[in-house]
Parts: sequence; C-alpha cells; structure tokens
Amino acid sequence: MKVGFVGLGIMGWPMAENLVQAGYDLTVHNRTQKKAEEFAKKTGAQLAHSPKEVAESSDVVITMLPGPPEVEEVFLGEGGLIEGADTGTLLIDMSTSSPMLARKIAEVVREQGASALDAPVSGGDVGAREGTLSIMVGGEEEDFERARPLFEAMGKTITHVGPSGAGQVVKAANQIVVALSIEAVSEALVLGSRGGVAPEKILDVLSGGLAGNRVMEVKREKFLSRSFEPGGKARYHRKDLRIALESGREYGVALPATALVEQFFGALEARGDGDLDHSALLRLIESLTGS
Amino acid sequence: MKVGFVGLGIMGWPMAENLVQAGYDLTVHNRTQKKAEEFAKKTGAQLAHSPKEVAESSDVVITMLPGPPEVEEVFLGEGGLIEGADTGTLLIDMSTSSPMLARKIAEVVREQGASALDAPVSGGDVGAREGTLSIMVGGEEEDFERARPLFEAMGKTITHVGPSGAGQVVKAANQIVVALSIEAVSEALVLGSRGGVAPEKILDVLSGGLAGNRVMEVKREKFLSRSFEPGGKARYHRKDLRIALESGREYGVALPATALVEQFFGALEARGDGDLDHSALLRLIESLTGS
Repeated sequence: MKVGFVGLGIMGWPMAENLVQAGYDLTVHNRTQKKAEEFAKKTGAQLAHSPKEVAESSDVVITMLPGPPEVEEVFLGEGGLIEGADTGTLLIDMSTSSPMLARKIAEVVREQGASALDAPVSGGDVGAREGTLSIMVGGEEEDFERARPLFEAMGKTITHVGPSGAGQVVKAANQIVVALSIEAVSEALVLGSRGGVAPEKILDVLSGGLAGNRVMEVKREKFLSRSFEPGGKARYHRKDLRIALESGREYGVALPATALVEQFFGALEARGDGDLDHSALLRLIESLTGS
Repeated sequence: MKVGFVGLGIMGWPMAENLVQAGYDLTVHNRTQKKAEEFAKKTGAQLAHSPKEVAESSDVVITMLPGPPEVEEVFLGEGGLIEGADTGTLLIDMSTSSPMLARKIAEVVREQGASALDAPVSGGDVGAREGTLSIMVGGEEEDFERARPLFEAMGKTITHVGPSGAGQVVKAANQIVVALSIEAVSEALVLGSRGGVAPEKILDVLSGGLAGNRVMEVKREKFLSRSFEPGGKARYHRKDLRIALESGREYGVALPATALVEQFFGALEARGDGDLDHSALLRLIESLTGS
C-alpha cells in the first residue's frame, strides 16, 4: 500500500515516522518544503511538490494540518488532494477540524469515486511520538477497516464513532471537557489557595472522589510549580473551542461554559501567553483575584 | 467517650448509626423531635431536647445540618451548643457550610476553652451508609487526632487539610470541580448528540483520555437513560456553589464559570427540577438547544 502524508509539524512528523517504521512506503509533502526534504532524507520517504502529487502517487493519503483553513486548502484548493485522487483513493484527515468541513469534503471526495475519513486524535505530541494516540474516526465502516492498520501504527485506542464528521464532533466534545476541567481545577485551586489551603492538599483530596479527573493528574506538576511549558498550547485549544462553538451554532446548540472558557483562552493569548500549556488558564483566573 | 450528635437527616442518621455500631455512647438531638425519638428507640441512644443539652452531656459533639443558617443557629443561637460546651468539649461540624462561619465558630468556641473542627464530607448518602465518606478537616492537629477514631467510624479517606475553615474551603473547591465536570459532560453530550454521535460512544472515547473524569463514570447511566433520581440533589449542589461564591467574595477571588453554573442550577430549580440529581444539568443544557 502506498501512503501519502501531508503536514509534517509537531504532530505529523512523528506520526509519519511511525508509519515508516511500520514498513509503509511513504510520499510526503509539507508547506515548508525544507522540512519535507529533511524528513525524506532521514527516513527514505519520497518527496512530492503538492498535495495533488501526493494523491496521484498514493492509495491512501493522511493529512495532519493546523486547522480548517489549511484543511480546506489542501483538500479543495488549487493543486489540492481532490485533483490528484483517483477512484479508490482514501483520503484521511487527522487534523482537528470542523465537522461541517469534514462532511463537505467527504461529499466532494465521494462524487469522485474516492473515499474520505475524518480521524482527529488526542494524546498530544507525546502520544504522537510514542504511537499511543487516541483516534476517533468518522466515515464508512469499510473505509475505517481499510485504514485500521495505518491507525494502529500511530495510535492505541481507535474508535469508529459514526458517519463522516462524527470524528470531529467527538474531538470537539473532548476539547470541551478538557477545557472545562482545566477551568474547574483552576477556580478550585485559586479559591483554595486564597482560602489558606495548600494546593497539593486540594488536589490530593479532590482526586479521590467525584471531583477526580485526568487533568488534575496529568497537569498536577504544572499546576503546582506554576510553570507552563507546553504540552498542548493554549492557543491551539482556543482554536479547538472555536470549532466546537461553530459546530454548536450549526447544530443549534448553546455551549455557554465553553464560550466563557474560549474567551478566557483568548484573554490568555492577548496577554502573550498563548504559547503556554493550556493549563496556564490557572494564571488567567489568578489574574482576576485581588492580591 | 460520650458523643453527641445533632442533625439526623439523610446524611446524619446513617453517620450516627455507624458511631453507635462502633460502640460509642450517643446522645442525639434533631429539630424534628420525632426523628430523634425513632433513632433513640432503634439504637438505644440518649435523647436531648436542645443542642445545649447535647453539649452538656458529651465530650465530643458532631453536627450534620443543611447549611450555614442552621449551623449558626445550632452553635451560636439560644440553647445552642456554645451554651452547653465546657472546657475540653470538642465541637465538630460536618455540614457543608461556609469557611467564614467555621472560623467565626472556632473563635467563639476557643474563647470558652473548648475546641472546634470543621469536617465536611463527600460521598453522599451512599458513602454515609457504608461508612466510606471522604472527610476534609480544618482545625488544630491535636483536635484532629482526638477526633480521628470517630471519623474512622464514618469515613474512609480522612485528611487534615489546614486550620479552621480549611475543611470548608476544600469542600467548596470540590463542589466547584464536580459542578463544572457535570456542565462539561452535559455540553459535550448535547453537542455530540445533535452532531449525530451516540452518547455512549462519546463517553467511551472521552473517558480514555485527558477528558476522563469520575462524573462521567459515576453518572454514566443517568446521562444515558436521562432519568435523574438523586443521588446528590441539584438544589443542594446549588447551595454549595453559593457558599463557594460567597467565599470567593470574601477572599477576593472571581469564579466566573462557577457563577455561571450556579445560575444554571438555579434555572433548573426554577423549572421545578431542583430535587433531581445534580447531573440533571444535562436537561437544562438541552433546553437551550433548538429541537
């Protein structure tokens, strides 16, 4: 099986590397050509000069891009994947993107006799490197089965969640819960600290009961040291929440707490802290207190 | 050791029963006298006609009351515990109440040569019956050690979190995280369902990653069946969030997402759903969508 890969960023690079390691014959493309050249040199992958060229020389193409505008450009723009896809080509977008765009792409792709999956991931750059990503997949069952060996080279928990767009819907839902969990722990820690309780005690007690969540385990050291090297950057999480809010508008769903936290991520970004870990939301909540 | 117990409600009754079972000699009081008589009849406990009388005949008194107004009345009101407490009496409030009130009570109690602990619990009526409550304790270390055997008869995870008021601060922090977790799961489920994904799939995928939390495990069947028998009632949780918000005002801490969810619990109550489980917040978020 010839596999194409477009988008060799902090996530895409290690995912593509895991595919090479699993024995796949890769053709890669990246907007910054230099990076694709490095990747080709390091791994022996083939180089392509456009998404179209990648699609022409591949049975399956995977994309891992920053967000909806880039996904739309790479799939549907000039020299895009659509132009190079053949009957039987399977195009898999693993970016975090919009459910509506995923459905639109799937429609266009199917008109051409090709297939599409939306397959966003969670697990971050660590999960990408270690091949332990969670992958939530929307699209036809048979396309999912066809792609499964590729997913297994990149991830650990691989779930077919529904038709086209469903993968992106679940990713949006995931990002809502993560964002509100960070907000929750931040408000709890700020109240607790100002109330004279050591933050460690708060996390210890809360993690044992109904308040327990993965965010307070995984981000514990960041919350306690109050040093916020990323991890998942605040501005990326904000982008994901914007996708959730747009989806809400599309489906007629109000997401009031999500909207509030999107604004806080925006304020964090405006303060120049957008490149910190998303758990730096704690700092924003702290900034709302007296001193 | 002679132990007094004031407040034989849905939580207090089984907690007091566990103390009897552990061999303590109990004197009880309840606002509705009939209930105290029933308890005395069932367990052989002594009856007292006022909090003052309870304190007069006990070395340690435990209170389990609906909220701050009742706590203030039982401790500081006419015929209250303070009037009956002697040098060396230990007064332990296990209600969910205000940190500021806990500190005020501790001060008044100490002026009298007696001692006070604030020791709110989590784990609900199930935890109360099974003696598996989490108990978060504020006050002096030596008073905590003195009370420990009593706590061990009622709970499983027992933590001394700081000076007077600290137990209530941690409980407020706990209730913030639980409330925002319910809100998070609700927004995620409503978006996901309207986006065409089965709620089970959403919970399955989210629980495996950074979005995972105890609320989606413990309340899973309620979210899926959309039947919300309590459990922890929405209106009690709202009361707890009001305590958190008051504490925030006292400490100069803004709690914007907590404030939002307190309003939603209020709207749920206004719809006549205040006696449902707190996870019924899902219904309120659903009511904000198109159909």
